[in-house]
Amino acid sequence: MIDTKLKPGLEDVAVATTRLSSIDGEHGALVIGGYPIAELAPNATYEESVYLLLNDRLPDEEELERFRRELADRRSISEEVASILRQAATEEASAMDALRMGLSAATLQSNANDGRETAHRLIAVVPTIVAAYWRFRQGKVPVTPRLDLGHAANLLYMMWGEDPAEDAVRGLETYLNTVIDHGLNASTFTARTVVSTESDLVSAATAAAGALKGPLHGGAPGPVLDMLKAVHQTGDPEGFVRDILENGERVMGFGHRVYRARDPRAEVLSSAAERFYSRSGRDDFFETAKELERVGTKLLLEYKPDRPLKTNVEFYTAVLLHGIGIPRELFTATFAAARMGGWMAHILEQKRDNQLVRPTSHYDGDTGRVWTPVQERKNSHLRK
Amino acid sequence: MIDTKLKPGLEDVAVATTRLSSIDGEHGALVIGGYPIAELAPNATYEESVYLLLNDRLPDEEELERFRRELADRRSISEEVASILRQAATEEASAMDALRMGLSAATLQSNANDGRETAHRLIAVVPTIVAAYWRFRQGKVPVTPRLDLGHAANLLYMMWGEDPAEDAVRGLETYLNTVIDHGLNASTFTARTVVSTESDLVSAATAAAGALKGPLHGGAPGPVLDMLKAVHQTGDPEGFVRDILENGERVMGFGHRVYRARDPRAEVLSSAAERFYSRSGRDDFFETAKELERVGTKLLLEYKPDRPLKTNVEFYTAVLLHGIGIPRELFTATFAAARMGGWMAHILEQKRDNQLVRPTSHYDGDTGRVWTPVQERKNSHLRK
Repeated sequence: MIDTKLKPGLEDVAVATTRLSSIDGEHGALVIGGYPIAELAPNATYEESVYLLLNDRLPDEEELERFRRELADRRSISEEVASILRQAATEEASAMDALRMGLSAATLQSNANDGRETAHRLIAVVPTIVAAYWRFRQGKVPVTPRLDLGHAANLLYMMWGEDPAEDAVRGLETYLNTVIDHGLNASTFTARTVVSTESDLVSAATAAAGALKGPLHGGAPGPVLDMLKAVHQTGDPEGFVRDILENGERVMGFGHRVYRARDPRAEVLSSAAERFYSRSGRDDFFETAKELERVGTKLLLEYKPDRPLKTNVEFYTAVLLHGIGIPRELFTATFAAARMGGWMAHILEQKRDNQLVRPTSHYDGDTGRVWTPVQERKNSHLRK
Repeated sequence: MIDTKLKPGLEDVAVATTRLSSIDGEHGALVIGGYPIAELAPNATYEESVYLLLNDRLPDEEELERFRRELADRRSISEEVASILRQAATEEASAMDALRMGLSAATLQSNANDGRETAHRLIAVVPTIVAAYWRFRQGKVPVTPRLDLGHAANLLYMMWGEDPAEDAVRGLETYLNTVIDHGLNASTFTARTVVSTESDLVSAATAAAGALKGPLHGGAPGPVLDMLKAVHQTGDPEGFVRDILENGERVMGFGHRVYRARDPRAEVLSSAAERFYSRSGRDDFFETAKELERVGTKLLLEYKPDRPLKTNVEFYTAVLLHGIGIPRELFTATFAAARMGGWMAHILEQKRDNQLVRPTSHYDGDTGRVWTPVQERKNSHLRK
């Protein structure tokens, strides 16, 4: 029997030192690569944010141009991967299932080394996989990636088959930057655990995407949108939220395990969404969101006064991505497209100063059972 | 700044309570589902061991027969997956890369629920993926799985295209049982972390396989075989090991992070290998292994007297699997075929009493950097 206290969620257990992001849950502050999130997210392109995480500084014009080209050159997928994605779409597998399949095969027809080149390859290929899957879901053929477009713009272009508006691209850049990294969340920690065995980047990225898929991690913005749409239709946020709380259920889009103050990412995305909706002339949906935020916060304080529950990143992710025109089915996959930059930076950081992750467990089973051949076992009395 | 001590390897941090396996590293004891490993491994079929982990008891004849059929019915792979495996083989991707690709797509054309049915599906499909990949590597077509054969026998049959000898099947069963589970090793912990987000079994299994691939985890038996073959050829184990130690390198197949006594799995596999080699009339290779074990243990005590380094599971995995006729390229994938049973049992256990795994980190980067537009950045002095 091991004499250690059980830590099933590893809460407050620090497993790594990182230069990538810093979370201050008490004060609601998030720093990405040295920049407060509100400083970085609305200004940078996604390529700049990725470069920042991989190099601990922003690129100058020449470096950025080279980096953009390096990523753009790694966007294509093989025919075999396209077939798998078509099959996934035909069977209506989720976008995250399709992404997992695509990522796991992303080294095929790639001659990248298992370091920065593969990191670039994995970052570059996510939009292509997601968009191809989506085109198949629509009964259309995938759109070939365009080399002249940036990462965010090209994602929208491949999804829609037409040039995206500037506002949509800026909105998506801001979203991708906002959620690019966030400490040792479950998927990032999964990625670091996988490479801690000295396994490769593709295995780690595939594993991380699998973890992000879970509703407790990356799977929540979809249900937030359902709620927003319902409230937008009824026009009665108070009745809607009160019903949820009276039934003892969770109000989606509020509260976060780490933040006791407001999730700083909600702030950044709220501003981005406000800017986007006001320009697109669809202010009414944004007003519904603001009203739901106001009412939800008030009622949660009434029902759960012990813990302040503010809107979280998922709340305004749903608002912003829906505004841009990204379908609900791709919300988590778009999150993955953003987080891939963080995963890669964490993986490379882990590889620089690695230690095998191997926790322990408490055993509460039997010991000393004695073998009996199958012919002598009679379990009929044990069966239900 | 979080005021917690850094635990980069999570050594001695208990993250789960489990009924599946218990490791006593001090005394070199391993219990699987209540049975000491030496009691279970040489006697059970792999299906019995899996049933044990999933049900906390061994099946009777009727239950075992039903379970065998349930697994056998889930062995086939789709054409899309076969294409990916062919491509992987053509490019000489590793067997573990191929397995990751195959597993990640294993839900295609499967109507299993995301519980026991998918667990059975994932366990059943590993041999098919691995054998199909291997057949493609040989320039042959995959062999259709046979429903009348057990899990171990069918794996050998699909790899070779002919009925395996009884001794080979028994040897493989013993191997699969011996390594079916082993506490919260990195891959099992990865699987539990992935489902802790309420993600699905396929994502968790794919992630676990990715972790097992690493040389610090499942990737070591191959190099042991290289060493054994070299020693078998020169006939000078002492000179061989002394060279390694004089160069300050690690002797493969000796020592384990958890066991200070001899790895109990080495014991079980050593006996199984001895039985197998003596019947197959190739005692000389086994004698080389025994001699290398004797000499290696002696020299390690001489060079590293502070820590007793005995042969570990990888040492006799290499001896036994090589004897059976499993190619070195498939050692880690065969390990995965075994461990899939343990992964599935751990995943189902985690789901029954789940808590999101989310550790924390220390931050040692900058804070408060201020945004400057790319045009104003001049990094030429920073570049190498």
